Amino acid sequence: MNNIKVGMIGYKFMGKAHSHAYRDLPLFFPNTVHPEMKVICGRNPEGVAEAAKQFGWEEYTTDWKELIQRDDIDLIDINAPSDVHKEITIAAAKAGKHVFCEKPLALTLEDSREMLEVVEAAGVKHMVGFNYRFAPAVMLAKKLIDEGRLGDIYHFRAWFLQDWLIDPNFPLAWRLQKEIAGSGSHGDLGAHLIDLAHYLIGDMTEVIGMSETFIKQRPITTGTSGLSAGGSDENAEKGEVTVDDATLFLTRFANGALGSFEATRYAAGHRCTNSFEINGSKGSVIFDFERMNELQVYFTDDRDDVQGFRRVLATDPAHAFAENWWPPGHTIGYEHTFIHEVVELMEAFKEDRQPVPNFRDGVKCQQVLEAVDRSIEKRQWIKVSDV
Amino acid sequence: MNNIKVGMIGYKFMGKAHSHAYRDLPLFFPNTVHPEMKVICGRNPEGVAEAAKQFGWEEYTTDWKELIQRDDIDLIDINAPSDVHKEITIAAAKAGKHVFCEKPLALTLEDSREMLEVVEAAGVKHMVGFNYRFAPAVMLAKKLIDEGRLGDIYHFRAWFLQDWLIDPNFPLAWRLQKEIAGSGSHGDLGAHLIDLAHYLIGDMTEVIGMSETFIKQRPITTGTSGLSAGGSDENAEKGEVTVDDATLFLTRFANGALGSFEATRYAAGHRCTNSFEINGSKGSVIFDFERMNELQVYFTDDRDDVQGFRRVLATDPAHAFAENWWPPGHTIGYEHTFIHEVVELMEAFKEDRQPVPNFRDGVKCQQVLEAVDRSIEKRQWIKVSDV
Amino acid sequence: MNNIKVGMIGYKFMGKAHSHAYRDLPLFFPNTVHPEMKVICGRNPEGVAEAAKQFGWEEYTTDWKELIQRDDIDLIDINAPSDVHKEITIAAAKAGKHVFCEKPLALTLEDSREMLEVVEAAGVKHMVGFNYRFAPAVMLAKKLIDEGRLGDIYHFRAWFLQDWLIDPNFPLAWRLQKEIAGSGSHGDLGAHLIDLAHYLIGDMTEVIGMSETFIKQRPITTGTSGLSAGGSDENAEKGEVTVDDATLFLTRFANGALGSFEATRYAAGHRCTNSFEINGSKGSVIFDFERMNELQVYFTDDRDDVQGFRRVLATDPAHAFAENWWPPGHTIGYEHTFIHEVVELMEAFKEDRQPVPNFRDGVKCQQVLEAVDRSIEKRQWIKVSDV
Amino acid sequence: MNNIKVGMIGYKFMGKAHSHAYRDLPLFFPNTVHPEMKVICGRNPEGVAEAAKQFGWEEYTTDWKELIQRDDIDLIDINAPSDVHKEITIAAAKAGKHVFCEKPLALTLEDSREMLEVVEAAGVKHMVGFNYRFAPAVMLAKKLIDEGRLGDIYHFRAWFLQDWLIDPNFPLAWRLQKEIAGSGSHGDLGAHLIDLAHYLIGDMTEVIGMSETFIKQRPITTGTSGLSAGGSDENAEKGEVTVDDATLFLTRFANGALGSFEATRYAAGHRCTNSFEINGSKGSVIFDFERMNELQVYFTDDRDDVQGFRRVLATDPAHAFAENWWPPGHTIGYEHTFIHEVVELMEAFKEDRQPVPNFRDGVKCQQVLEAVDRSIEKRQWIKVSDV
Repeated sequence: MNNIKVGMIGYKFMGKAHSHAYRDLPLFFPNTVHPEMKVICGRNPEGVAEAAKQFGWEEYTTDWKELIQRDDIDLIDINAPSDVHKEITIAAAKAGKHVFCEKPLALTLEDSREMLEVVEAAGVKHMVGFNYRFAPAVMLAKKLIDEGRLGDIYHFRAWFLQDWLIDPNFPLAWRLQKEIAGSGSHGDLGAHLIDLAHYLIGDMTEVIGMSETFIKQRPITTGTSGLSAGGSDENAEKGEVTVDDATLFLTRFANGALGSFEATRYAAGHRCTNSFEINGSKGSVIFDFERMNELQVYFTDDRDDVQGFRRVLATDPAHAFAENWWPPGHTIGYEHTFIHEVVELMEAFKEDRQPVPNFRDGVKCQQVLEAVDRSIEKRQWIKVSDV
Repeated sequence: MNNIKVGMIGYKFMGKAHSHAYRDLPLFFPNTVHPEMKVICGRNPEGVAEAAKQFGWEEYTTDWKELIQRDDIDLIDINAPSDVHKEITIAAAKAGKHVFCEKPLALTLEDSREMLEVVEAAGVKHMVGFNYRFAPAVMLAKKLIDEGRLGDIYHFRAWFLQDWLIDPNFPLAWRLQKEIAGSGSHGDLGAHLIDLAHYLIGDMTEVIGMSETFIKQRPITTGTSGLSAGGSDENAEKGEVTVDDATLFLTRFANGALGSFEATRYAAGHRCTNSFEINGSKGSVIFDFERMNELQVYFTDDRDDVQGFRRVLATDPAHAFAENWWPPGHTIGYEHTFIHEVVELMEAFKEDRQPVPNFRDGVKCQQVLEAVDRSIEKRQWIKVSDV
Repeated sequence: MNNIKVGMIGYKFMGKAHSHAYRDLPLFFPNTVHPEMKVICGRNPEGVAEAAKQFGWEEYTTDWKELIQRDDIDLIDINAPSDVHKEITIAAAKAGKHVFCEKPLALTLEDSREMLEVVEAAGVKHMVGFNYRFAPAVMLAKKLIDEGRLGDIYHFRAWFLQDWLIDPNFPLAWRLQKEIAGSGSHGDLGAHLIDLAHYLIGDMTEVIGMSETFIKQRPITTGTSGLSAGGSDENAEKGEVTVDDATLFLTRFANGALGSFEATRYAAGHRCTNSFEINGSKGSVIFDFERMNELQVYFTDDRDDVQGFRRVLATDPAHAFAENWWPPGHTIGYEHTFIHEVVELMEAFKEDRQPVPNFRDGVKCQQVLEAVDRSIEKRQWIKVSDV
Repeated sequence: MNNIKVGMIGYKFMGKAHSHAYRDLPLFFPNTVHPEMKVICGRNPEGVAEAAKQFGWEEYTTDWKELIQRDDIDLIDINAPSDVHKEITIAAAKAGKHVFCEKPLALTLEDSREMLEVVEAAGVKHMVGFNYRFAPAVMLAKKLIDEGRLGDIYHFRAWFLQDWLIDPNFPLAWRLQKEIAGSGSHGDLGAHLIDLAHYLIGDMTEVIGMSETFIKQRPITTGTSGLSAGGSDENAEKGEVTVDDATLFLTRFANGALGSFEATRYAAGHRCTNSFEINGSKGSVIFDFERMNELQVYFTDDRDDVQGFRRVLATDPAHAFAENWWPPGHTIGYEHTFIHEVVELMEAFKEDRQPVPNFRDGVKCQQVLEAVDRSIEKRQWIKVSDV
């Protein structure tokens, strides 16, 4: 097995997370294929040069088109803003490169479908960055469901609550502009919940949603990135927020379960509450990303005097990836989800298969996002298969 | 101030809770009007005789029509099954009696409206049994909102999760029969959430819901009451469950907040999770009835290095009703919500005003219940004011 | 079985709790012997008259010596301040009355031993008020230990944390005066922990302790009672605090377990954290009175991927006393521990046996309290059997 | 500023943690001095060769004496078993190398004092590996105390609970042999608590302790490392456990606070509960390493109706190191404490000062460990300054 030579496009929040994953993987997962950090690419020459040095890339470039043509690159990692995912993916796949693309795949379902077609036609490997699947506690939930230990699933309820927009003078960052971000809380946070639902429960058949933009005008700013922004000046000129601040929807799953979803950036006190609960005929689980090492687990067949939710710390040898880290009880953090994600990608190279989640999952997520949007616009239930 | 002489109809789960409230009130609330436990009424002579003795009523009867005509009765307390609420209320009000009726007021919105008209025309006092308003932690949430300490309200999400129907052989109790119970989880559990939403947030403008009956046939049984039932025999003849096992809905409030509701009896591990969260521009609160003495409270203006949800134990002198009980940290339980409820009723007598919540609140709740039912039937958003 | 006719001496905090227990018992426990609330006794005629009316006693008196001679009294309940327990107990027992005495039995071990001798010689029933044994979650811990489900016990650690003395201007209440209270946090709070340890783990063999009075002078006041006090005036004349603010000790149990105890009134944020943890070879339990309906339970033989502390809500039919209350998940509070305690007392009458805990337990607790005091004074380990 | 060239001795659990810290530091802390991973050293040539490759060291060697003489090495990192710390430290310091030594410094207080003398005489920088100081939530506790926001400190209670020895057939690993490990739970776990107490509260004046070895014989094994061990064979020959399984002690601090400590490897259900609580006149804090991103914080001057422990997630910009990681709410894990530790070491190079904690802290910790041991042996209080 040879190393996989990576060219990465994007160097902000996700660029840092991916770089770190590539960098740490060989230390903790010595027995899989390893990534080689060849080239990092960005629009700003100074910024990308600094990132290359800080993150540990051999080279940097500002020309992604040249990058994807290089013979010494196997994999293109795309974590630039969402509006450029499509063009880069298509060009990279046509150049025979494998593609690892951050979510959301594209700004529209149509675009994401085109991307899927192209990567499949090109016969390359493709992965989409739904990193939360890779928290060991989430993987434990998946295992319990797959082994039938929760029985038939009745309920899935999920909410992704953040509060970084509570301040009305927080500026009009790119994540608040539809033409760049595509969507607001729905596409950013809701997308993760939808993917977790697909992973854990399966397909949805129909949806109906509701959304709101609570603060419609925000100060225009320059130079924001990630979740932070440069200064909050209440006298600054204001521009329109063109994405949703919060989106909720109800759904039915193909297996008969009922689903409830909520994504918001206005839940004071919640920094990153990516949380779900699943109730089945034999048990339940509860996950909250702010305590990402834990899964609350309940079984109906526990002895009658000691029934209760167990706080399982997913750091034991019995838990996914745990033995590659530290002794039981020594927890891991946010960044580890990316390392596990890249492990899956490397294993896919090792076993010559598609990684999971891949573009099929990305498209499926986008389909639900768009079905919800349509249900909001039309104010009626929408069949997912109709979009 | 004279004592209030009570005649009570019903003697099961709620009958016990109300009796206890009347019995304990004078001990802990010596400075208000006191109830006098005169007559208890039920259909089964032996059952009601035993209840009278156990609960501490002076007399018992099986004839509610005679009871409501007695001159020595001021107040009729109705906690018999929901299908008889209307007839008794109307007769009692016409006989000039004050009425304290358990929720739901009636099986239909139309009936509940008629009941409201009659009690108002009769000029009697009327109260409806939404006891959860009277948990001190819930009252603290109300206070924080009323004083503006949570700012503008963005989100209200609430769920009432129980699990007593998880066993498919749990019998076809009266609560599972539409002609007696009127509704399933929606009218039983959802009604409490809707009333809490009205109390805390205000009116809803439109709703859309979804519901399901997961297990459609259950063993026919005799002699069930309350939440328990006589035996669970898998070979027994089966009958159809005619109410919902779970109902979810989304809503918009008149003040612009978004709401999400879920009521289910299939959430394994949740015995009585009556829970809500409210997010506002200045703070948030979280309540869970299984820890009913606690309110989680967050303020956005806490110093930046010590922001976090506070676990407030609502047992301090600063909290409603707390000084009538025990020193700080000495908690109270489920039954205390009924005592507080009756304190409100007695205070209404003392101050000669309508108690709160009264039949107007009961009708308002029923209106939302019915709007949700209609939205499910028609598969579309329903304006609450249209029903 | 006849009712038990009660004469009660004391009418403050504990008097209210006991009265309520007598009053509520017949409603929730119809099938045992019932108490009859005959006479309440106190020094202040107006105060005791008002208490009689409020609490529901048939008569009141200010003369306890007369009370204990009455033929129509079976049981004397003593919850007056600790310094009068001994005299009343001895007189009552000699008059042939059964005695239910609040903890601590007396101000000294010697006195409590004398009391035990007298009640045993008199052949009356005797009970001591260690109410925390009667929280269903605590009884679940006891059951798990007795059934061997925690295996061999290695550790018992317990702390009773309160914070009502944090304010340096809180006045010099009777609980801070050695001649009335006998002891401070040690005898008030620590005594409960010691009794729980005896109940759950068994005898202690040796102890070593440490104590401190953090604030040595406090404003002199008049008219304090219970845990509250009349006003906090920083200009008031000050008197010396003669009891401990906090006492800690280490111990070895006869069964080989190691114990750690801490009682304090200076733990900011803890209103009533009466908490213990037990670790055994097969499992562990954790209890916190501020969440008194819950027991955290861990078993080493749970399947390896779902090991974790379970949050057991002790409100199921499988739990002690629970079926006499409400459906699962409907919690109870502080006052219910007293009701359960009186149920045990009434059952003892029904079965003609000594109730548990009785004066033997009271003496055993006092013996450890005194051993700890001696270990502090002598600055060395003290064998419990030596005091 | 030049990079610091590191030679590291030891390559097991701590070796991995340190290597990772060196490797990740430049990515997340670009603006400090950076370590250069030059040489890794171990006794087993194959093992150390593999570690070098996996961890990312340029070279490896089996000869530590040669290593410390190399001109191209600035810093010697010692994380080999405790019995070799002293010899290596002294030789390295005499060779003019800076030393970063894992805790405990040595097997005895005397040895650790000698080590301190030598490094001070040599004028090199010295650091000891008390990594738990570097959890941002712990640093927040320190900040609150230093700013007086908790007022006068009354109580410090700490417990380090693990359960990896619950199985009686867990083998006789090196950590259970006094001649290699020096001490059991006391030196391994208790040492961390003692250092946290020194960091947060200050010096202790006197101590009294108690310890136990619950399981005195364990299967002899070969080839164990870290906290795990090769197989658990109940038929294997057994050897004597020569260290403590659990040690508890009480203490007084110089500032008047009372302290309680417990370290055990027999607390079923606790994988790594390194926890402390501090109560002061103005507030309290609670930390538990299993939820290492959180600090529970209570202030006595919070408004009277919203007093309660706040769950502060120490991931905001206001918290130490947090801005170098991820957005608020995106948590970090165990390994990050080592990265922060190394940041402190690198900053010390940058600012040309001693890092903290250094060998003075290591000696101070050892002094308390030994005072406790002596108090156990002599069964009496021991003044810390007397050892």
